[in-house]
Amino acid sequence: MNKGRLEAFSDGVIAIIITIMVLQLTVPKEPSFAALLPLVPVFLGYLLSFVYVAIYWNNHHHLLTVCGNASGSVLWANMHLLFWMSLIPFVTAWMGNNPSAALPTALYGVILLLSAIAYAILQARIVAVHPDREQVRHVLGNDFKGHFSPLFYLAAILLAFVSPTISHLIYAAVALLWVVPDRRLEKL
Amino acid sequence: MNKGRLEAFSDGVIAIIITIMVLQLTVPKEPSFAALLPLVPVFLGYLLSFVYVAIYWNNHHHLLTVCGNASGSVLWANMHLLFWMSLIPFVTAWMGNNPSAALPTALYGVILLLSAIAYAILQARIVAVHPDREQVRHVLGNDFKGHFSPLFYLAAILLAFVSPTISHLIYAAVALLWVVPDRRLEKL
Amino acid sequence: MNKGRLEAFSDGVIAIIITIMVLQLTVPKEPSFAALLPLVPVFLGYLLSFVYVAIYWNNHHHLLTVCGNASGSVLWANMHLLFWMSLIPFVTAWMGNNPSAALPTALYGVILLLSAIAYAILQARIVAVHPDREQVRHVLGNDFKGHFSPLFYLAAILLAFVSPTISHLIYAAVALLWVVPDRRLEKL
Amino acid sequence: MNKGRLEAFSDGVIAIIITIMVLQLTVPKEPSFAALLPLVPVFLGYLLSFVYVAIYWNNHHHLLTVCGNASGSVLWANMHLLFWMSLIPFVTAWMGNNPSAALPTALYGVILLLSAIAYAILQARIVAVHPDREQVRHVLGNDFKGHFSPLFYLAAILLAFVSPTISHLIYAAVALLWVVPDRRLEKL
Repeated sequence: MNKGRLEAFSDGVIAIIITIMVLQLTVPKEPSFAALLPLVPVFLGYLLSFVYVAIYWNNHHHLLTVCGNASGSVLWANMHLLFWMSLIPFVTAWMGNNPSAALPTALYGVILLLSAIAYAILQARIVAVHPDREQVRHVLGNDFKGHFSPLFYLAAILLAFVSPTISHLIYAAVALLWVVPDRRLEKL
Repeated sequence: MNKGRLEAFSDGVIAIIITIMVLQLTVPKEPSFAALLPLVPVFLGYLLSFVYVAIYWNNHHHLLTVCGNASGSVLWANMHLLFWMSLIPFVTAWMGNNPSAALPTALYGVILLLSAIAYAILQARIVAVHPDREQVRHVLGNDFKGHFSPLFYLAAILLAFVSPTISHLIYAAVALLWVVPDRRLEKL
Repeated sequence: MNKGRLEAFSDGVIAIIITIMVLQLTVPKEPSFAALLPLVPVFLGYLLSFVYVAIYWNNHHHLLTVCGNASGSVLWANMHLLFWMSLIPFVTAWMGNNPSAALPTALYGVILLLSAIAYAILQARIVAVHPDREQVRHVLGNDFKGHFSPLFYLAAILLAFVSPTISHLIYAAVALLWVVPDRRLEKL
Repeated sequence: MNKGRLEAFSDGVIAIIITIMVLQLTVPKEPSFAALLPLVPVFLGYLLSFVYVAIYWNNHHHLLTVCGNASGSVLWANMHLLFWMSLIPFVTAWMGNNPSAALPTALYGVILLLSAIAYAILQARIVAVHPDREQVRHVLGNDFKGHFSPLFYLAAILLAFVSPTISHLIYAAVALLWVVPDRRLEKL
């Protein structure tokens, strides 16, 4: 089976997800600073989600290099990941338009959490169908970030009902943690 | 002729179809559960169509691996399939916004039926232009699902005028039937 | 220089052009036949433009197989073609929403005409930079359709101010002329 | 690491950026010349941005041919470029809808300036990780345009508050400067 087409399709979907988010930055009618100001939280939300989608693309790109066999279960695990990621533009816009509201901030975390779980399932499927599982596990390492991110998302979901700002800071901190070069992946 | 570019173009179109559907999940104005509730049927419709488009992508991906010659009639049979698939976002949104109405539910089935017919035509063209037709037919097998799905869509179209819910269940059941691994295709 | 990336980029842009047109089929609010009826001309316009963009993709695909050198002037001639083609969704929606009006029907033809001219320029550039011009010219043949289509578009633009319906029929006829298999290109 | 997938992803994002801009050409309701007239500045803005995005694609295409190693810092420098470029549709629409206003014209220049800086960073990273830095620097040449464009954008940003028209002319002039064939890049 052709791994190249799985990459090409995923690239296409991720490229569209990362780009259509900008359509939610509604063009203001007035050509003034005052009209631009309410867009600041929407812009920050866009920046945050752009970074998250970029992280997923980078990691997906690395993960697929160790994928030896794009079989049925890998294809569906990949589609499952793309499904949750495709909802990122929706929750980004809702949170960006309501930066001080609990529910949109929590739902943003729910989608990040479900995407992270879907990514873990995809990784597990790729390991499971690989002829040399031990070597792939060794190459992927102990996956510290992969295990801890979901806990941070969970904390942010709950804390959104105390203070959305704390949740926003957690989302930003986890993103930063991932952007910082990861020697485990570079090793590949 | 270059089969790779046919795959790349189809991947692009299918990736856009599967992703722009999410634009029809209108971002609610209020940051409340009450504002989210009317989106539930739209979300379920999105999930259903996401699965259908993913099934088409998977099958298309497999079908093209046996395509030896991307000649004129194969190119146009492929465009014909993409045309009907490109209408899935439209009927998904109409059905999702009117979950208890007969006509949108029936039209959803009409587009699924026309897509299935277009897929069958594409498969027939690929077999017809292949130098070793018998072997390709053998590899593709008896195509049980391919023959029965149109009958289910037809039933769902008619039953939509009795109870849209029955049609929704049929659509979901056919999708499930396809997601379940298909040994015929895995054999390829 | 890498011809593959020129193809990939063109595929991406053409895939988006052909797919975003469907966003202009506004989802009706009412779940009734009456609400669907005004969409019929928009749907027919979408079908016509889908066929035109598919023709361009097919021809572009064939033309690039004889392109030996994706140099600067070929890159810009290609961008020039994509620019006019990117306006097809706009004129399709305007004509579809105003099927009996002269101006949108004429402007549709103007965009088809400018796209055809841009295609001719791209073809000329690809011939010009090819090391064996005579052979490429021979392979491309006398290009009957390429020479006559612009005359038909010109006629349709002028006749739109007499009767838009005549222009619509001309657009449909020229599209049909192109969909019919072209032995010249098959020869490649 | 796989440079091909970096190119494919960038192609996808740039193809979407260049194409979704056309969605901001709102289809007029009336089928008259009068209804088309207010779209003229929006159309000119679209043309200008189309040319800028095309220039970036061309240059990016050339730059990546000398990229030997798509490592972590190159991936992120590329994402950083795509981020600023993804805001071009937004500023194009705002400037096009308000052609005589200072702020949108200045913000357009800010996004061009940030994109140019991001491009310079990407180029610097690609040179830095290349095994033979001296040769790459020699191939890239003295990069006259790359150094002077930011100064022009800066001038246009400031002059927008004196006369937006002067800024528009500067943007158009810089674009023309880039479209004119560049022997440095052809040499590659």
